[in-house]
Amino acid sequence: MTTRFGILVFPNVQQLDLTGPYEVFSAVRDAEVHLIWKDLAPLRSSTGLMLTPTATLEDCPPLDVLCVPGGGGVNPLMEDAVVLDFLRRRASEVRYLTSVCTGSLVLGAAGLLVGRKATSHWNAHDLLAHFGAIPTQGRVVRDGSLITAGGVTSGIDFGLVMVAELFGREAAESIQLAMEYAPAPPFQAGTPDEAPPAIVAATKSKLAPSRQAREEIVARVMRSRVTS
Amino acid sequence: MTTRFGILVFPNVQQLDLTGPYEVFSAVRDAEVHLIWKDLAPLRSSTGLMLTPTATLEDCPPLDVLCVPGGGGVNPLMEDAVVLDFLRRRASEVRYLTSVCTGSLVLGAAGLLVGRKATSHWNAHDLLAHFGAIPTQGRVVRDGSLITAGGVTSGIDFGLVMVAELFGREAAESIQLAMEYAPAPPFQAGTPDEAPPAIVAATKSKLAPSRQAREEIVARVMRSRVTS
Repeated sequence: MTTRFGILVFPNVQQLDLTGPYEVFSAVRDAEVHLIWKDLAPLRSSTGLMLTPTATLEDCPPLDVLCVPGGGGVNPLMEDAVVLDFLRRRASEVRYLTSVCTGSLVLGAAGLLVGRKATSHWNAHDLLAHFGAIPTQGRVVRDGSLITAGGVTSGIDFGLVMVAELFGREAAESIQLAMEYAPAPPFQAGTPDEAPPAIVAATKSKLAPSRQAREEIVARVMRSRVTS
Repeated sequence: MTTRFGILVFPNVQQLDLTGPYEVFSAVRDAEVHLIWKDLAPLRSSTGLMLTPTATLEDCPPLDVLCVPGGGGVNPLMEDAVVLDFLRRRASEVRYLTSVCTGSLVLGAAGLLVGRKATSHWNAHDLLAHFGAIPTQGRVVRDGSLITAGGVTSGIDFGLVMVAELFGREAAESIQLAMEYAPAPPFQAGTPDEAPPAIVAATKSKLAPSRQAREEIVARVMRSRVTS
């Protein structure tokens, strides 16, 4: 029986948030991986790589797994009624609702994280609390049928966890082997705890404008929810 | 000054071989990342993801780094005179000639690995010897200005090594932090040495047709070289 994975794709998505789990999902026997957006026109990811949707929000078939990746492009999505409606509608139908990186902020804006444990990119992790989520440390965080992953590269770990959940450990191990996923980062700098303090400060400073824009959007989303 | 990265893209490329280093390279300040192919029409990667070239073999600007990713699509490339000529011409002009996964087989077919240490996906590693290379174990293997990486996900490690080489360790660490690259594979199965023997046997069996096709092509390439 075909297993259907759907990954939301949108302008300024962080492409590796999407392409990491895509590679894992597409290695599953008899799987379909759909890239879902409002229309099928190619769109530009945050770093320039063009991505081509394969299904629309309206015509996408029923999904087993729905995944929302992150990136700069999540900012407008948090206030996009069409996208939020799609997520709310599908959330009740899929077997697993999932996200990578700041994709969890979009799930939060859709009201789908209330009282649920969730994670996000380290630079957005605390913002989850504004949506009523329980911000939880972990590269892949599971709360029942909700699975959220940390920043960018955690999407690969998430993909393997998801495949193990659906098809068993051996299916995931075989994909891990085929992808030669025995990572050897040249430096210890992947989290704020591990990276040298000067690197953390410089990186936070570089990400500050995006972080501030996000804070404002999250506040606006929550205000509109209270008053609506 | 702009740093120009060029990554070859081709039908049936393994998309994560390409999208991993793409994400790292594109995070460099004042960088251009070109996806290079014969024309600019979108093409299908081995798992279905569509990729859109941004420069042609003919009009691509001078590059600092040229990278050849791998995947099922390398098989025809090993006998594609247009691609091999491009690689030979550019190899003498770039600062670094690089590959991810089975992309090194294409460098080998172009005659660019003779007497050089190189690596590849574990299931193709030994084939490098046919091209006169010195097959060398390592997730990222350096021989002067030649840098080759192992299978698929090693492209992320390679990307960071490359950025550290070009711009220093701190530039790479900042990108690693922004990508939250503190990998946590859920299983120990990323290499034939680490994976359970039954998984290795099943995965090799699944990859056997591609492996056999590759052996035949490599033999044909070397015969044609001897007789020409």
